[in-house]
Amino acid sequence: MPRFLKYISKKTGAAPGTLIHVGEKKADQTTIDLIEYNAESTARRSISSISELQSLAGRSDVIRWIDIDGLHDTTLIESIGRIFNIHPLTLEDIVNTGHRPKVEIFEGYVYAIIKMLRYHGGVISSEQVSLVISDRLLISFQEQPGDVFHPVRQRIHNAMGRIRNSGSDYLAYALLDTVVDNYYQILESFGEELETLEEALLENPERESLERIHQLKRETVYLRKQIWPLRETIGGLSHDDSPLITDQTRLFFRDVHDHTVQVIEIIESYRDILTGLLDLYMSSVGNRMNEVMKVLTIIATIFIPVTFVAGVYGMNFKFMPELDWRWGYAGAWGVMACIAAVMIFYFKRKNWW
Amino acid sequence: MPRFLKYISKKTGAAPGTLIHVGEKKADQTTIDLIEYNAESTARRSISSISELQSLAGRSDVIRWIDIDGLHDTTLIESIGRIFNIHPLTLEDIVNTGHRPKVEIFEGYVYAIIKMLRYHGGVISSEQVSLVISDRLLISFQEQPGDVFHPVRQRIHNAMGRIRNSGSDYLAYALLDTVVDNYYQILESFGEELETLEEALLENPERESLERIHQLKRETVYLRKQIWPLRETIGGLSHDDSPLITDQTRLFFRDVHDHTVQVIEIIESYRDILTGLLDLYMSSVGNRMNEVMKVLTIIATIFIPVTFVAGVYGMNFKFMPELDWRWGYAGAWGVMACIAAVMIFYFKRKNWW
Amino acid sequence: MPRFLKYISKKTGAAPGTLIHVGEKKADQTTIDLIEYNAESTARRSISSISELQSLAGRSDVIRWIDIDGLHDTTLIESIGRIFNIHPLTLEDIVNTGHRPKVEIFEGYVYAIIKMLRYHGGVISSEQVSLVISDRLLISFQEQPGDVFHPVRQRIHNAMGRIRNSGSDYLAYALLDTVVDNYYQILESFGEELETLEEALLENPERESLERIHQLKRETVYLRKQIWPLRETIGGLSHDDSPLITDQTRLFFRDVHDHTVQVIEIIESYRDILTGLLDLYMSSVGNRMNEVMKVLTIIATIFIPVTFVAGVYGMNFKFMPELDWRWGYAGAWGVMACIAAVMIFYFKRKNWW
Amino acid sequence: MPRFLKYISKKTGAAPGTLIHVGEKKADQTTIDLIEYNAESTARRSISSISELQSLAGRSDVIRWIDIDGLHDTTLIESIGRIFNIHPLTLEDIVNTGHRPKVEIFEGYVYAIIKMLRYHGGVISSEQVSLVISDRLLISFQEQPGDVFHPVRQRIHNAMGRIRNSGSDYLAYALLDTVVDNYYQILESFGEELETLEEALLENPERESLERIHQLKRETVYLRKQIWPLRETIGGLSHDDSPLITDQTRLFFRDVHDHTVQVIEIIESYRDILTGLLDLYMSSVGNRMNEVMKVLTIIATIFIPVTFVAGVYGMNFKFMPELDWRWGYAGAWGVMACIAAVMIFYFKRKNWW
Amino acid sequence: MPRFLKYISKKTGAAPGTLIHVGEKKADQTTIDLIEYNAESTARRSISSISELQSLAGRSDVIRWIDIDGLHDTTLIESIGRIFNIHPLTLEDIVNTGHRPKVEIFEGYVYAIIKMLRYHGGVISSEQVSLVISDRLLISFQEQPGDVFHPVRQRIHNAMGRIRNSGSDYLAYALLDTVVDNYYQILESFGEELETLEEALLENPERESLERIHQLKRETVYLRKQIWPLRETIGGLSHDDSPLITDQTRLFFRDVHDHTVQVIEIIESYRDILTGLLDLYMSSVGNRMNEVMKVLTIIATIFIPVTFVAGVYGMNFKFMPELDWRWGYAGAWGVMACIAAVMIFYFKRKNWW
Repeated sequence: MPRFLKYISKKTGAAPGTLIHVGEKKADQTTIDLIEYNAESTARRSISSISELQSLAGRSDVIRWIDIDGLHDTTLIESIGRIFNIHPLTLEDIVNTGHRPKVEIFEGYVYAIIKMLRYHGGVISSEQVSLVISDRLLISFQEQPGDVFHPVRQRIHNAMGRIRNSGSDYLAYALLDTVVDNYYQILESFGEELETLEEALLENPERESLERIHQLKRETVYLRKQIWPLRETIGGLSHDDSPLITDQTRLFFRDVHDHTVQVIEIIESYRDILTGLLDLYMSSVGNRMNEVMKVLTIIATIFIPVTFVAGVYGMNFKFMPELDWRWGYAGAWGVMACIAAVMIFYFKRKNWW
Repeated sequence: MPRFLKYISKKTGAAPGTLIHVGEKKADQTTIDLIEYNAESTARRSISSISELQSLAGRSDVIRWIDIDGLHDTTLIESIGRIFNIHPLTLEDIVNTGHRPKVEIFEGYVYAIIKMLRYHGGVISSEQVSLVISDRLLISFQEQPGDVFHPVRQRIHNAMGRIRNSGSDYLAYALLDTVVDNYYQILESFGEELETLEEALLENPERESLERIHQLKRETVYLRKQIWPLRETIGGLSHDDSPLITDQTRLFFRDVHDHTVQVIEIIESYRDILTGLLDLYMSSVGNRMNEVMKVLTIIATIFIPVTFVAGVYGMNFKFMPELDWRWGYAGAWGVMACIAAVMIFYFKRKNWW
Repeated sequence: MPRFLKYISKKTGAAPGTLIHVGEKKADQTTIDLIEYNAESTARRSISSISELQSLAGRSDVIRWIDIDGLHDTTLIESIGRIFNIHPLTLEDIVNTGHRPKVEIFEGYVYAIIKMLRYHGGVISSEQVSLVISDRLLISFQEQPGDVFHPVRQRIHNAMGRIRNSGSDYLAYALLDTVVDNYYQILESFGEELETLEEALLENPERESLERIHQLKRETVYLRKQIWPLRETIGGLSHDDSPLITDQTRLFFRDVHDHTVQVIEIIESYRDILTGLLDLYMSSVGNRMNEVMKVLTIIATIFIPVTFVAGVYGMNFKFMPELDWRWGYAGAWGVMACIAAVMIFYFKRKNWW
Repeated sequence: MPRFLKYISKKTGAAPGTLIHVGEKKADQTTIDLIEYNAESTARRSISSISELQSLAGRSDVIRWIDIDGLHDTTLIESIGRIFNIHPLTLEDIVNTGHRPKVEIFEGYVYAIIKMLRYHGGVISSEQVSLVISDRLLISFQEQPGDVFHPVRQRIHNAMGRIRNSGSDYLAYALLDTVVDNYYQILESFGEELETLEEALLENPERESLERIHQLKRETVYLRKQIWPLRETIGGLSHDDSPLITDQTRLFFRDVHDHTVQVIEIIESYRDILTGLLDLYMSSVGNRMNEVMKVLTIIATIFIPVTFVAGVYGMNFKFMPELDWRWGYAGAWGVMACIAAVMIFYFKRKNWW
Repeated sequence: MPRFLKYISKKTGAAPGTLIHVGEKKADQTTIDLIEYNAESTARRSISSISELQSLAGRSDVIRWIDIDGLHDTTLIESIGRIFNIHPLTLEDIVNTGHRPKVEIFEGYVYAIIKMLRYHGGVISSEQVSLVISDRLLISFQEQPGDVFHPVRQRIHNAMGRIRNSGSDYLAYALLDTVVDNYYQILESFGEELETLEEALLENPERESLERIHQLKRETVYLRKQIWPLRETIGGLSHDDSPLITDQTRLFFRDVHDHTVQVIEIIESYRDILTGLLDLYMSSVGNRMNEVMKVLTIIATIFIPVTFVAGVYGMNFKFMPELDWRWGYAGAWGVMACIAAVMIFYFKRKNWW
């Protein structure tokens, strides 16, 4: 279950604050992407050196979003941390991609961990996204290039909505909202699979269905584990009194919180439905067996006694008067027919046929 | 499971506050219905243009209930929002018919989402109703024409009860109360089905019963999901300190809250009963199988040994002394009768017969 | 499930405060019984007209208990409400016999709903009792004549205990206490049934046991639903700060609260035991089947091979050397005995016999 | 289930404060045992009359522990109550041996109910112990002579530990501690049984195991019911602000509270393990059946077809060319061997053998 | 279940504060190890006598970590307690190795119990570690030599991280952190086993798998029991207001708390997965049985009727016209082939083949 637990052994025993990258190395090189914008203008460029980052200080008339993709280069992360005054514990959490979602308020910034999920080939995988929300600056750390934030970048570029007129807190909200919206898409695919599965089960329960139910159940456990802590996380953002988050943005966070709660409720419904499907499968299998047994029993209990009669008159005793009777053979058929009729009548009455 | 999740893909990535209609388009055209009343008089008319709505401002001596049916025309909804100062987030929730029930207090109005349920052909469907409760004005948004509010309109028309003498908060209560009353009707039909099902199960467990249990379970999950959040929703209305809701009306909201709690308790009882029915079904199937097995076993274990005896004397060995005995044939019958008797005695003692 | 849900359709859509009797009509006529008492004297009489009730005002030197049996005559209930200043919502709850237990504090009185249970023929039925506790006056509303309050009337009559020296709050306590005491009796009968059932199951699991388990489970669900809300109800009475309830009586309410909690704990224990009994039943059935199968298998696997041997020597081939052997027949018996012995040995080793 | 519910019918309807002994009469006569001690000296004697108790007033330089064994003599209990100013409700609870554990603070004393458990012959029985903790005086009420308090008496006698230098609250703690320590012993025996049972199940699942699992489950339900309320009970003692309990003793109560919590956690673990054992049993039975079925199937499917072949050549048709063939008999054997081989090969491939 | 309950009988009845070693004696001799360090220097040595410990008083310029391995020598533990002013209740808990994890604040020190776990051969064993955190001094008590604290000692020795510059509270954090990190390693091994087991189950469900599932479930119960209380324990450390713990270290404790919560969540996920595996196993066994039954039924229902036909013509009646027919034998084969074909067609249609 490596998905469930990414905390690898090399980390054990290290001094707290030591940056150790936990998780798969998903990117070859760390790339840094900078977007600067304000109500009037916007610019986007790649940052290739630390010194370039350092020179970003000054100017307070723009909002900056620094997006860092790739977490394996801990020296680089450490330098970034030093430039922007990020606490060592935060840095440690950033590179530990197995951390659970949370929000923490530090001096000068709010730190949030969320999980970006992908659903591919029936398996959900997650990528950890860390957000450092500071005054007029948002730094996002992702495990690899490629994310779901494209619409946000477009909104910044096209000055759609209120994003260009709001601060870094609103940007954080926009990112969170996109991530949570993405959960809905995953749940949608999930729900479609559930429906297909249910129909398949009602028609013909097969071993494959059982394995699929099991697999979906495990995915639900995983999904729940990734999203559950988000509830308090985003709830925290909408209630905490950090000065970095304006009251207006808090209203928006409340909205994302609503969505998260709904996502969790849907997951719970899916769990209930899956349990129901398993019950349905097991009852169907039981039913199946019952039907098979009935056929066997009907055939066997009709033919075993009549075969016995045939066996009796196959005996080679010298003195068997029936054998010499004129209607002996017809009589034997009669007896056998009677036995069969009685049996069939019994089954009919028992409602087995 | 499209019922469980209406949040469709086109919404993802849109800027917050962008109005995107989520859900099936259920109405061809949006219709607007206006009822104005005060203690003395009442009037009802259709509104066909936005400008007509705009001109409604002035006069503060009447209570107005604007009922809007059809949510797909987002431009129209947006215009209405602008006229009545409704926050963009509220508008977004109004047209997103997959939202969960909630109450939110905004400046100038209280916003509530509830679900109006229909039970048809064993399947529950829901329609989202949004209420914007403002001073002397209530705007209700429904997905389609046709609702359960007829009795409320009649009470306004006939000046029954205290409705004509109360404010928009009491009107909101009346609508909520009607919706919750409607839940009782659904539960009633549900309960009758449960009873029929239980009787059927006790008489003769069939595969159809299993499918019906499964279906009812899924409906219960759905019902729970739709009604559960209403608990806090209406609880919120009876506790919140918005000046728009008078203390007297709060007392009435407490009453609806009581009803909602009871509805939820009944749903929970139904869940328990359904689980019990499934257990009953599965045990019955097990019992059934047991009975079938017993019949098979009794028949087989009586006839298999005696058939063997018959087989023995059907052998063609030259030297088989029994075959020549005078009472050989009778003796064989005797042996077979003995074996059968022993078996029957054994089953009797084991209490299998 | 009419027991689980008494809210009938005719109520839907009625204006709040409209008195509509919900539930079966259990009494032909409403009877009103008045008991007046103080430390010195006591008197009991029937009231036959509303005007008589109206004239009861004055005198504050006695405690009055007005007991009303029969709720279908809503006009009468309404008149009573008007005389004693009972809020329309309270009156609505009084005649709605499907309401859940609750306590509400209104101006001038405390209103409590409890359920009086009967256990008859394995089925629990409930009668709703409403108490309106006001200063020096207690009005109780029951669905029909006949109740469990006889001991309380006797104590008033015989001046036993402190009842004659206490107020209407103590009288309310005495009634509640009697109702809860009655629950213990029901649980006692219930417990005895459980014990009988358990013994029956351990001896011989039968289909009737299954139906009885199912039935008891459903009764437990019903019991729980009736009594569970009472916990907070009576808890509320012992904590609320209504001036109508003295601190001393509060101590007594705390005592009833303890009892209610214990009743609920016992119900929970019963649920656990019932679940255990169902498990026991199902395992027993499984065991049963296993035993049946073993017998079938032993008989079949011993006789099928030996019957085959007999069959072989029943063949009519011209050239079958064994048939002509001197010891052919004995040898065939020997072979068959060997096969049987091997089988028996196998079963013994497998521990199946 | 008389153990689960001791509240007998005769109690119903009695006036509160009426002393009615509920439960089995376990002692013939009530015995009263007095221990007086202070730092310097200690004395123990039997009290035979009420007047002797009355004369105990005066002297405040000793701690007194009055231990009363036997609760059926309600007149005696009532007199004792009058002497020591015990509230009628407390007296009622003392003689009602079916009460749940609780702590209540009255004026002048703290009242605690706990359950002393015995585990004998696989069945847990409980005895109710009531403690009335007053200034420099502790009265304990037990159902019968014989308890687990021997070590406490010894510690008083031998002046071990701090008991002789502490007040009646510490004595109460010592008694509670001994009772809870006793729970550990019961859990120990319980745990050993669980272990034996588990080993037995893994080796050979038998019907007796099923009954034992069921029995242990019921005992766990009972244990839980007896001990669960103790959690808040003792928690209450360590938090309440009664002046009768010193801060130092509170520290010790916190310790007992820890132990109670641990006891409850162990009970929960045992429940989980028992559920696991039941699953194990049921799966084992299923496995068993599977194995039996396989043997039956293998034997039957090998021999039924070959017996058919033998049957064919046992037919008496005039014209059956095979019968006259030279190698007909050998050929029949060959065909039968082939059929058997094919079957065996099939089973091998299916991994059934 | 000795692992679940270490509280042995000899303890019962002892005066509180009496030191009685509870648990297995795991060490022959108690060893005491002292590490002294400050920002500048560090030293480590063995302490062999009590007097040496006593002389440690003075100097306040170093942090001291006294590590005591072996708890059976209660006299020694008592002496240590006297030297460092440890409360008797704390000492009692230290030598009671069956205590549950907790944190308690005493005057002058904070006392914490945690469990160090080992996973060996599929079984988890635990060792109790007690920490007494006092000003500039930390005393750790372990059951035996050998622990997971090696990395901490190295960090002190090599002056890595901030440990040499922080107080005894940070040292306590470092130890706790190492213990919790160790839990991750155990969960990792656990998770790998789960994965292997799941694959094995999907391929071929065997009795061994069942036993392994059962064993893992029991280990999960044990794990949960050991780690669950740690949640509040460490939560307590991060919230309590003891002056011994600085605000900065509190931040670190919050971090460990996060980890503990995650560990518990993973355990819960494992429990869910194990339940799923058991369901999978049982359904697979049911499927298996179904398949076996089908084969039996198909073979039996095809051959039983045809064998009957063969039996009929094996009868020896004098007058059996068919026997003399020219095509009698071929006709019999035809009839038998027809029966078989009908049966096969039936099974095909039923989708059983």
